[in-house]
Amino acid sequence: MKPFKIGLLGLGTVGTGVVRIVEGHQDDIKRQIGSSIEIEKILVQNKNKLRDIHIDPHKITEDPWEVLEDKNIDIIIEVMGGVELTKNYIIAALEQGKHVITANKDLMAQHGHEILAKAEEHGCDVFYEASVAGGIPILRTIVEGLSSDRITKIMGIVNGTTNYILSKMSLEGASYEDVLKEAQELGYAEADPTSDVGGFDAAYKMTILGTLGFHTYITVEDVEIKGITDVSAEDIRYSSHLGYEIKLLGIAERKDDLIYLSVQPTLVKKSHPLANVNGVYNAVYVYGEAVGETMFYGPGAGEMPTATSVVADLIAVAKNSVLQVNGSKPTISSYKEKKIKPLDQVVYKNFIRLYVADKAGVLAQITQVFTKYEVSLESVVQQPNPDLQAAEIIIVTHDANMESMEKVLIDFKDMDVIHEIKSIYRVEG
Amino acid sequence: MKPFKIGLLGLGTVGTGVVRIVEGHQDDIKRQIGSSIEIEKILVQNKNKLRDIHIDPHKITEDPWEVLEDKNIDIIIEVMGGVELTKNYIIAALEQGKHVITANKDLMAQHGHEILAKAEEHGCDVFYEASVAGGIPILRTIVEGLSSDRITKIMGIVNGTTNYILSKMSLEGASYEDVLKEAQELGYAEADPTSDVGGFDAAYKMTILGTLGFHTYITVEDVEIKGITDVSAEDIRYSSHLGYEIKLLGIAERKDDLIYLSVQPTLVKKSHPLANVNGVYNAVYVYGEAVGETMFYGPGAGEMPTATSVVADLIAVAKNSVLQVNGSKPTISSYKEKKIKPLDQVVYKNFIRLYVADKAGVLAQITQVFTKYEVSLESVVQQPNPDLQAAEIIIVTHDANMESMEKVLIDFKDMDVIHEIKSIYRVEG
Repeated sequence: MKPFKIGLLGLGTVGTGVVRIVEGHQDDIKRQIGSSIEIEKILVQNKNKLRDIHIDPHKITEDPWEVLEDKNIDIIIEVMGGVELTKNYIIAALEQGKHVITANKDLMAQHGHEILAKAEEHGCDVFYEASVAGGIPILRTIVEGLSSDRITKIMGIVNGTTNYILSKMSLEGASYEDVLKEAQELGYAEADPTSDVGGFDAAYKMTILGTLGFHTYITVEDVEIKGITDVSAEDIRYSSHLGYEIKLLGIAERKDDLIYLSVQPTLVKKSHPLANVNGVYNAVYVYGEAVGETMFYGPGAGEMPTATSVVADLIAVAKNSVLQVNGSKPTISSYKEKKIKPLDQVVYKNFIRLYVADKAGVLAQITQVFTKYEVSLESVVQQPNPDLQAAEIIIVTHDANMESMEKVLIDFKDMDVIHEIKSIYRVEG
Repeated sequence: MKPFKIGLLGLGTVGTGVVRIVEGHQDDIKRQIGSSIEIEKILVQNKNKLRDIHIDPHKITEDPWEVLEDKNIDIIIEVMGGVELTKNYIIAALEQGKHVITANKDLMAQHGHEILAKAEEHGCDVFYEASVAGGIPILRTIVEGLSSDRITKIMGIVNGTTNYILSKMSLEGASYEDVLKEAQELGYAEADPTSDVGGFDAAYKMTILGTLGFHTYITVEDVEIKGITDVSAEDIRYSSHLGYEIKLLGIAERKDDLIYLSVQPTLVKKSHPLANVNGVYNAVYVYGEAVGETMFYGPGAGEMPTATSVVADLIAVAKNSVLQVNGSKPTISSYKEKKIKPLDQVVYKNFIRLYVADKAGVLAQITQVFTKYEVSLESVVQQPNPDLQAAEIIIVTHDANMESMEKVLIDFKDMDVIHEIKSIYRVEG
C-alpha cells in the first residue's frame, strides 16, 4: 500500500517528538495500519534554524501553502500553536479533503464547533487528543471507554505549571512568588505566566472535557475562573493541618441537565487520589453514574508524551482511511441544549480564613451569619495572631450553595470585627 | 434504522447491570449509534428464579441454542462465566456471524487466540474490555490511546479481593486469616478463595494485558505466580517502617524483545501512585518509551462498573456495524515471536526477612553471601526478637538479577546461623 503522507505545521518540541516517533516506530506503525507513514513537508518559521534532529532540507518550508496545497499530503498535523491564523490553515486543509490532527487546546476550545462542522462537511477526521492532558488518552476514554455511561462530574488537574508550583509550595513551605521564579528559571513556567497561573489554560481544557463529557457545546465563557496567584504559604499550611492539599482543579459537574464549570484552587482531602498527583503530572477524575469513580494519570505535557498522543491520533486517522470511514464515524455530538446551573444549586464545602478582632463574642457574631443563611459548619478553629494584634479564624463549612455563601461574604464585609477575608476556597473529597 | 438485537448469555450481577444500562441509557445510546438496542433473548440457568429486575418472561430461556441460533440476534453478550462450554457457545455464535462481547478473562486468557481467529474468519467483532479491571477502559487505552508508543512495562493491581485484604491488613494491622474471613463474610472473597489469593485471577488478566501491550501471544503458563497467603502482619509492618505498602502486583516487562511476566506480593514505595490504590479498586500503571508513566484507576469489579465496560463494547460493535467495518478493523495482532527473558536478565530489588542466631558475626556471614553473588544492599536492619531467642534481619537489596538471588537463597539454606527465611518480596517504585 502507498504510504500516508503527512504535512507538519510547526517543528517545536512537540513537532520534533512527532518526527522522532514516526521515524523510530515505523515498524510497529506499519504492523497496525498496513502501510508506512512519511512526513512529506514541514512548515517552520525559520528554515535556517539549527535543530536537534536531521531533516531533509527539501522538506522544510516557510510557506504554509506549500504544505496545505500539496496534493500528495493526506493528513495535516498542527503543532504550531496560535489561534486565528492557525484556524484559517486548518479550515483550508479540511476544504482540500485533508484530515487534521491538532494539539491546540486554545483553538479547539474556541473554534472546535466550526472546525468539526467543516470536517463533517468534507468527510474528514479531526482528532485532538493531545490538546488536553498531553500523554493521557483522556478524550478517547470519555468518548469510547465511557460511552455507555452518564458522566456526572469531571475533576481535573490539567495544568502542569500550576501543579508544579502548588506541589513545591506544599513540599517546601515556600511562597508563591519564590516558587514561580524558580519555575520560570527551570522553564516550567513562562516569562508571562498569566495563562497558566490565572487558570485560563485549565479553563480551555475543561471546556473541551465538558463538551465531550456532557454532549453540550461549552465555551470558555461558561467557566468560572480563579487562578492560583493569591494562594499563600499560610493557606497551604492550614489546609495541610486540616488534612488537605491545595490543587488547581477544573471541575465540570452536571445534575439532570444543568451543568456548572469552574477552575479554582481547591482543597482536596489527602486520601483522595488527586491529592497525590504532584509536579508536572496531570490527572483527570471522572464520575459516571454506573462506573463510579475512575482516574487517568500521566504526564501533562512534554515533547514525547504529547507527541505520543498526536501519533496515536495519526494511527487512528490512518486506520479510518484504510477502512474508508473517515469523517463518517459517529462522533459524540453536542446534541444537548446548554443549561447552566443557577448558583443556588451549585453546592460544595468551603474553606474560609479570616482575620478578626481578638475579643470576646466575635466568633458568635460570625457563626450567626452562617446560621442566618443556613450554612452549617464542619469545623471552626480560632487562634490568636500576635503579629497582627488580631485573631485568625479558619472555617470549613458543610455543603453550601454558592448563593448563600455570597450572601455570607457580603455580610462579612460590613462587619467591623472582621478585618480581612484572607481566603476562601472550594473543598473536595 | 432497525434496532440492534442482543442475546445475553447469563443474568447474574453483570448481566443484570447490562440490562439496566441498556434500558436506562437508551436515549444516549441512540444518539451515538443512530438506532436503539434491544435485548431479544436471555439465557439463564433457572427460568423461575426471582430477580431484582422485571424482564418479559418470553425473553428468558434455559436453552442456549434458542439464543445462539436466533436469526434476529446480531450480537451475543457473554456474562455467564465458565470456560469450555462457554467457548463452544461463542464459537457457535461467531460461526453464525454474530459479534461477541465477553467479560470472561479466563476464557480470553486461555482461548483468546482461537476465538479471535474464528472472529476474523467470519468478519465478526470480539470485544472483551470488561475482562480486565472491570470499569477501567484499559484494553482500549493500550490498543488505541498508546498505539503509537512502545510499552516497556505494565504493573497492575488487577484483583480486588487481594487488594481489599492487603489494604485492610495494612490499615488495621490484622492477620491475613482474620481479614480473609471477614472478606468472605462480606462477600468480597469467595468460599474457596484460591483463584484470587493464589494470584491466578491476576495472572489471567496479566496474560491479556501482556498480549495486547507486547504484541506477543502470552499464555498463563508464561506467568510466574505467587499469591498472598504467606503475607504476614509482620511483613506489612516492617515494609511500612521502610516506607512501603505491600500490594499484589502483576508485572509484565519487556526489554528489547525479551519479556517477563509475574504476579507476586510486591513492596511499593508509599509515594508511588499504586501504593494509594486501596480496597476493591484496581489500577494499571503503564510505562511507554515515549509517553513515560501513566496510570488508569477505577473500580475493578461490581455489577455497574463491569456492565459499563460491556455496554461500551456494545456501542463500539454497533458503530462498526453502522460503518460496516466489523471484523475488518485492523486489530493489534500478536505478530511478535515470544521470547522469555532468562532469569539472569530479570532484575529488581528484594526485601528479605530472616530469623538468625543472635550472636556476633552473623551479619557479616550473611552479607558475605550477597557479596559472593555480587548483590549489593540498600539497607540492613538487625534487631533482637526475644520471643524467638533469635535476631531478625531485614534486608533491602539494590537491583539484583533473579539468578543471583536464587543462589543467595540456596546458600542461606545451608547456613546454620540462619534459622528461617521468613519472607522474600520484590520491591518496586
